This record gives sequence, C-alpha cells and structure tokens, in this order.
Amino acid sequence: RFGYFGKDKPELVRLLLCNVLGCLTDRQISLSASGDERVSVNSRDLDGITMLQREGTEVILLTSSENPTLGRLTDKLSQKTGCVLMSLNEPKQVEVEKLMKEKKLEWKEVAYIGNDVTDVDCLNLAGLSAVPLDNSVVTLNAAKYQCQSAAGHGAVREFCEHILLLKKILDRFVNV
Amino acid sequence: RFGYFGKDKPELVRLLLCNVLGCLTDRQISLSASGDERVSVNSRDLDGITMLQREGTEVILLTSSENPTLGRLTDKLSQKTGCVLMSLNEPKQVEVEKLMKEKKLEWKEVAYIGNDVTDVDCLNLAGLSAVPLDNSVVTLNAAKYQCQSAAGHGAVREFCEHILLLKKILDRFVNV
Amino acid sequence: RFGYFGKDKPELVRLLLCNVLGCLTDRQISLSASGDERVSVNSRDLDGITMLQREGTEVILLTSSENPTLGRLTDKLSQKTGCVLMSLNEPKQVEVEKLMKEKKLEWKEVAYIGNDVTDVDCLNLAGLSAVPLDNSVVTLNAAKYQCQSAAGHGAVREFCEHILLLKKILDRFVNV
Amino acid sequence: RFGYFGKDKPELVRLLLCNVLGCLTDRQISLSASGDERVSVNSRDLDGITMLQREGTEVILLTSSENPTLGRLTDKLSQKTGCVLMSLNEPKQVEVEKLMKEKKLEWKEVAYIGNDVTDVDCLNLAGLSAVPLDNSVVTLNAAKYQCQSAAGHGAVREFCEHILLLKKILDRFVNV
Repeated sequence: RFGYFGKDKPELVRLLLCNVLGCLTDRQISLSASGDERVSVNSRDLDGITMLQREGTEVILLTSSENPTLGRLTDKLSQKTGCVLMSLNEPKQVEVEKLMKEKKLEWKEVAYIGNDVTDVDCLNLAGLSAVPLDNSVVTLNAAKYQCQSAAGHGAVREFCEHILLLKKILDRFVNV
Repeated sequence: RFGYFGKDKPELVRLLLCNVLGCLTDRQISLSASGDERVSVNSRDLDGITMLQREGTEVILLTSSENPTLGRLTDKLSQKTGCVLMSLNEPKQVEVEKLMKEKKLEWKEVAYIGNDVTDVDCLNLAGLSAVPLDNSVVTLNAAKYQCQSAAGHGAVREFCEHILLLKKILDRFVNV
Repeated sequence: RFGYFGKDKPELVRLLLCNVLGCLTDRQISLSASGDERVSVNSRDLDGITMLQREGTEVILLTSSENPTLGRLTDKLSQKTGCVLMSLNEPKQVEVEKLMKEKKLEWKEVAYIGNDVTDVDCLNLAGLSAVPLDNSVVTLNAAKYQCQSAAGHGAVREFCEHILLLKKILDRFVNV
Repeated sequence: RFGYFGKDKPELVRLLLCNVLGCLTDRQISLSASGDERVSVNSRDLDGITMLQREGTEVILLTSSENPTLGRLTDKLSQKTGCVLMSLNEPKQVEVEKLMKEKKLEWKEVAYIGNDVTDVDCLNLAGLSAVPLDNSVVTLNAAKYQCQSAAGHGAVREFCEHILLLKKILDRFVNV
C-alpha cells in the first residue's frame, strides 16, 4: 500500500456515471395514442451494472433535464437497477464536480459513459470513459474507450467489463 | 439588406414541413389485440425539431387523411413536439401553397421532408427538401438532400442539422 | 375481348390469399406479463392491400388454426384491412379449392403469398405466388415471385405492386 | 432393441433444457413508466418446441433466480408453450443432475441450449447442446452445435430441427 502507488487509493474506479438516453437505452421511444411511452433496455447491460455494484463501485444514472417526459421511465430504471438517478443541467462538468466533491472523489476515480456533445468535457476528464458504437466523432475523440456494442444493446455491459478487468489488473499489481 | 441579396429575406428556411409516417417514424405499427397501436420515434429526431424551433423556424407535421386510425397517435406526437399537425389531402401542393399564402411565405423559405410519390411536387418546389434513406427513386430524384439516416431513426434530425448549417453559412454572408 | 384471349376472363388476379403470420407480420410476438400480445405490421403493406382492393381484387387473410392465441390479433388485422379472415386446416390446398369453387375462381385467377412448408401446394398452383425474403428453399422453389422485402417489412406491398403491374400490362393487351 | 444398441434406449433426446433469457428471447426488455415489462419471442421458436413435444420430447424452460422481475413473464411463456419452468441456482449442473435423477435420464438423453458462462458445464455434458448466434467464445466452445440464428429469432427452432433430424437418422438405423 505504501509502495509504488504511494498514498493513492488503489481502487481505479469508485463511481460510474452513465447516461440513460443514448447509453443504457437506444434513442427509440415507443408511443401509444394514450400517451404511454416505452424504452427498451438490454438485460446484459443491467447485469453489468449489478456486477459493478457488487464489486463496490457506485453507479449513478444521468438524465438531461431537457427530456421531462421520460422522467417516470428513468425513475423506473433507477429502481430496477438500484442506481441513484441524477438530472444534470449544462454544463455537466460543473454539476459532476460538485457531486465528486461531496463524495470526495477525484476524476481518476470516476468512469463516465456518454454519447452527447454535452458529455465531451466529462469524457475527457474521467479516469475511464467510453462511448457506445456509432457515435459522433467529437465524443469518440474524447472517450478513452470505444464500445463495440451499440447503446441499449450491450455498450454499458462492455464498459462495465472493461472497468472490472482493469480493476483486476490493478489489484494484482497492488497485492504484489 | 440592400446589398447582394436585394430585398430578399435572408432567412433561408422559415418553415419545415415534415411527414409523420415515413419520415418522423418508420412504417412499422405495433398492434395489440385490444386495438392499441404504437409507433416508435427517435429522441434525436425530436431534439432536432426542438433545435429548429428555438432558432425561430416553425415546424409543421403532415399526415395523410388516408390513415385515420393513426389520428390519435399523430395528435400525441404533435403535443410532444409542440408542432402544429396538418392533415393534407391530395394534391398536397395545392394545400401547402394555401398554407404558405396565409403565412406569406415563398417556396424558397420552406423546407420539406417527404417519402411518398405524393410528396414529389413539394420536394421539387421547396427551397430545401429531403428524403430518408432507402426511399423510392422518384422521391430521391425530387429531393435536394438525401439523408444518410432512415425514417424514424435520425433522418429528421439530419435534415434539421442540414437546415441549421445552411442558416449559419447564410447568416455569415449577410452580416459581412 | 373475343380475340386472342377467347372467352377467358382478362382479369389476371381476382383474389389474393395472404398468410398473416410470416407474410403480413414477421414472426416476432411481443409478450407482457399480463398476457397481452402484440405484433408489428408495416403501413406500406396495409396500403398495398388497399390498393388491390380499390382495383377490385379481393384480399383474404389466412391464419393457421394452430395459433389460437393470436386469434384476437388477427381479427384486429382483419378489421383494420377490411379483409375477410380465414382459418385454414391442413392440407390447405383442399380448403382453398373449396373456397375457389364457391367464388367460381380458377387457380390462374388466384394470387398466393405464403411462407411455410404447408403453403407449397398452393404456391405451386396459384397463377401468381410469392414468398417474403429469407424463406426456406422449399417455399422459394414453389413461388413464382421472390420478394426483396422481408415479412412484415414490405413483402406484401411488393407482391401487391407486382400484381397491379401485371394487371396493367394485361389490360393494355386486352384493350388493343 | 437387443441388436447393435444393446439395452440402450434408442431415443437420442428425451429432454430439452432451454434458457428463456438469451435463448428463447433476445436480451431486450421493453419498459413502460408504469413498470410493465415486455419481451419478444419468435413464433417459429414456439412452433419448434411444439414439434419436439409432439415427438414425445419433454421441454423444460430454465430461468435464473437472478432476474426475479421477469418472473411473471417467464410464467406466461411457460403457459404459452406448455413447458414446465425451472428456476436454477448455480452451479446449474448440480440442479440439472438432480432433475435427471428424478426423471431417470442420463446426460446423453438430454439436449441443452444455453448462452451464459454458467451454462458451460451443462453444454459440455449434454448429449446435444447448442448456443445461439453471437455468443461468447467460452459457450461456443462448450456447445456441440452453433446456431445460425440469434436468440429470440429462431435459434431454438433451429436446435429443435437439429434434434429431430438426428432422431430420424437414429430411428432409421434402429429399425434396420
């Protein structure tokens, strides 16, 4: 513990921030005449979040305040995953840093998966960051990891496995 | 104002006309035994419409009177996007020109995204016009812009960004 | 009328028989915990059926008695398209020929779109016959026309347009 | 019966064990704000199960106790297919062997279609075993048969037809 890594905490990632729309779900919204809205999630993504939570990594779901109609749906996803839901105003970086301060976290302990131009700052700053497949060039360039899976079809699971793999590698070095 | 552009209004597009079925949604309709019908929209398309509206461009959704069963669904989409909904009889050109007269608009100020043979005249006349990916040759030939995205999966967003880009370029020339 | 075609009726197709499951819809069934079932249809397919009906061609939807759970859904589709719904037992040929006798039709006046091994006889006998894209080899070989579109995604529309095109060509020759 | 095969039962497969999530359905779950969840199944897969049942092969659907929220949906699928539903804890091999003992079956009489790392032991032991298309390498290596169809889109049907084909071949040899 006091060797190579000095006093730094050896846990690489202690918090994952994850966009709901465009990361955990694709962008399709199913509408009925009665106003009922549906989105689709992938059970592998949900399992990935559970895997991280069991390893002691907190996962927070992010929504944008610009999509109020999806509010109840994201609440449901929050319950289903056992994740706190945070509604971020722009610039997101300011609000994320406020949260990190509360939780006494540094950027290198934060993983971020995003898909929007408004996520670029956080993607650049986070210790680990990812974008789903088929994203815009500007977010691709900001992200440290580019998922092979699309949003709502395994991208979040893929990033969770990436985080856990790095954690294992780090654990091995720390324990040596 | 009295330079290169003469008395012409410098705003390139002041109205976007957008087919619901085949542009804002794909053609799939989900049916239940109870008669409940659902369609799917893409949140990026809805955001694109909001972007245009914020820049002062009106967006009107078009439906065909031939699909009355989808009436309540298109009403819902109209509420959700804050767009007026217009039910067009054929020939569409006549009804669109009546609307333009009311709004004192010329064809060069109108953008049109369509997908059907009955849209060809309007696609030809509109200052800017587009068709989603995978459309019939006859509409492709009439449209000035051919989207890389399919209907209900980003085509409308793509056209909105195209309109905004041209607006920015025009603004720069006008202000010089 | 009494020239080349003799007393034969010049209408190429007076009846279209169309499988619901596997032609008008794909094979996906959406299930909820409450037992509600949904299928998806393509509005272009429904429009194709309407086009045929307007030209005086009757369209009958076929279901198999083996899928009773989908009964109410196919009733709904029958209402929505204004088509009679027929539940066929095997061998389908026998029941179809009984129907044809009632309607005083010959096989050359019947168009058939099917997707199953049990449809092979009717595909072989019908004056015009088609299978959606990605079907088994045995039905592909029996069908006179192989759709470029998949079941539930335009195959029926494609076949309707094919029927109407042949009708136009025939009309021209008859009127000469 | 007392010829080449000795006292061995000539029925190759007397029981099919089939994962619900990831085999009979894809991993997509549709969510509404009211908490209603939906999954999608393919009617060809359901027909495949019926085909096996008619030939006297029992089919048991497997769920994991880790997805309680899907409980009612899997109950529905169990009713719809007429299959018993079994909720397996890990290691699955232990629980499956307990079941086999009750039914006096050996591994060579069991077919298994799975998709998860936790299925690897059973895939290795079963007389016939399969994984849907696009599965992880570890399960692909354990399975004797690799489906050309994806989970929820025909993989189960494909495996059922494979089982029936082998049964026919075996029947022929036994009867010679």
